[in-house]
Amino acid sequence: MLYGSIEAGGTKFVCAIANEHLEITERVSFPTTVPEETMKQVIAFFEQYKNELAAIGVGSFGPIDIHQDSKTYGYITSTPKLAWQNFDFVGTLKKVFDIPITWTTDVNAAAYGEYVFGQGKGLSSVVYYTVGTGIGGGAIQEDQFIEGFSHPEMGHMLVVPHPDDNFKGNCPFHGNCLEGMAAGPAIEARAGKKGQDIPADDPVWEIEASYIAQCAYNTTLLFSPDVIIFGGGVMKQRHMVEKVHRAFEELLNNYVKTPKIENYIVTPSLEDDAGTFGCLALAKKADLHVN
Amino acid sequence: MLYGSIEAGGTKFVCAIANEHLEITERVSFPTTVPEETMKQVIAFFEQYKNELAAIGVGSFGPIDIHQDSKTYGYITSTPKLAWQNFDFVGTLKKVFDIPITWTTDVNAAAYGEYVFGQGKGLSSVVYYTVGTGIGGGAIQEDQFIEGFSHPEMGHMLVVPHPDDNFKGNCPFHGNCLEGMAAGPAIEARAGKKGQDIPADDPVWEIEASYIAQCAYNTTLLFSPDVIIFGGGVMKQRHMVEKVHRAFEELLNNYVKTPKIENYIVTPSLEDDAGTFGCLALAKKADLHVN
Repeated sequence: MLYGSIEAGGTKFVCAIANEHLEITERVSFPTTVPEETMKQVIAFFEQYKNELAAIGVGSFGPIDIHQDSKTYGYITSTPKLAWQNFDFVGTLKKVFDIPITWTTDVNAAAYGEYVFGQGKGLSSVVYYTVGTGIGGGAIQEDQFIEGFSHPEMGHMLVVPHPDDNFKGNCPFHGNCLEGMAAGPAIEARAGKKGQDIPADDPVWEIEASYIAQCAYNTTLLFSPDVIIFGGGVMKQRHMVEKVHRAFEELLNNYVKTPKIENYIVTPSLEDDAGTFGCLALAKKADLHVN
Repeated sequence: MLYGSIEAGGTKFVCAIANEHLEITERVSFPTTVPEETMKQVIAFFEQYKNELAAIGVGSFGPIDIHQDSKTYGYITSTPKLAWQNFDFVGTLKKVFDIPITWTTDVNAAAYGEYVFGQGKGLSSVVYYTVGTGIGGGAIQEDQFIEGFSHPEMGHMLVVPHPDDNFKGNCPFHGNCLEGMAAGPAIEARAGKKGQDIPADDPVWEIEASYIAQCAYNTTLLFSPDVIIFGGGVMKQRHMVEKVHRAFEELLNNYVKTPKIENYIVTPSLEDDAGTFGCLALAKKADLHVN
């Protein structure tokens, strides 16, 4: 009995195979080009395990159609990556693999990985953000993704400009929303160099932390989750989480009593593996549900 | 078989009795004074029906303790209404009525009323706000309240000041959060008169609509719910909802495809009865769950 994972990212795909204990036995990665080419590699990888493969979990870049009763369920929909627009991802897999295939966003998959194995283990409610080239978020309560007419797009929430920040924001839709002010490209545009080249004591990080703290603040008031996890490249700056704690506490002003801050606003314990483990756990859940 | 409802508001209590079809047969209201006095009236009202009463649903002003495994479950906790601080609401009822008693916030109760009988009927996911002397919000997905370390406090989300607005906000905790900028007292402080005395074409309503629209925008991106319901005194200005639609669409800039705006951002169909019907539905659910 094997489970498959597909992390379908905008720049690369990561596919993995795990045994029934969800121990990863094989993992491959290839660049995201066009569906014909990339999906051919995906299918070739999993065909090696076809006899034992019980289910596949997919976490995809989006937006995607998650409504099981929709004609375009399992499609990537209005992505700016033109070759992938209206691509029938789940249908393409189903033609070759007649097994349960779960379908959610890349950030929901990472959130689920942390919920099952990471910082959310044993908790009831988790919100996960990735802060990288974009900002995305996913929320889980009692094993269910928070969603409705579609999956969330949390990275585009509104933020109040920091008084020392002259940057106008670079979100093509909203200008100075959270993603437009705090994703990697915004940091680079503001500072004139990449985040990894900016020293930890540069004031630009205080500005960055103030936006992440606003995100944590809104998340606290709208979900009151048990934990808020911030992953992604920007949060690999290890000094960031403590700056976010301070800015968050100042904003919240003791209005509600959250769990202890060190356990409440955290970075992912699975690091970059959260998405793969999330896809695997979703695949196993789908398999157990069917059998 | 009868069900009871207690809407415990900061200024008045509304108690009701309904039959098993949740048709209201009796309703009383009295001012919120001190627990000894007000709860005596509550208990006297329900004691008339004690033999037939199967369950009571309570929707209370807060903050409240909703964790069943907490020592102070069923308490009103850190409310500014001093006489009610740390008051054991559910325990006080349980001493007299040995039946299931459900316990949630006043706004969650109203959200549940709309979810079961109103604008959320048949939908999977609902977010409800009341915009009145304060702003509160509740979210429901698949019959479960969204909550974690506590219930949400959505009314205090951050908003970006409107460029034509000189008002600095009057939230004692956060100054210019949503409640500080858009609740009834903020409208009155900004305009120098009460909302009901301000004509529909006064520019102050465009400012108000811009804040409610920001709330709808953040709610859309964080929950992607099937519907967002705005109730409360301020939304009784019938011209408001259309102003909110316009401001919301401008903010969203077609980034995600929501349901049709007229069906997506709406006012409550149960009007002021949402809370009572929500409490009754929660009471019935608890009774059916036990039996």
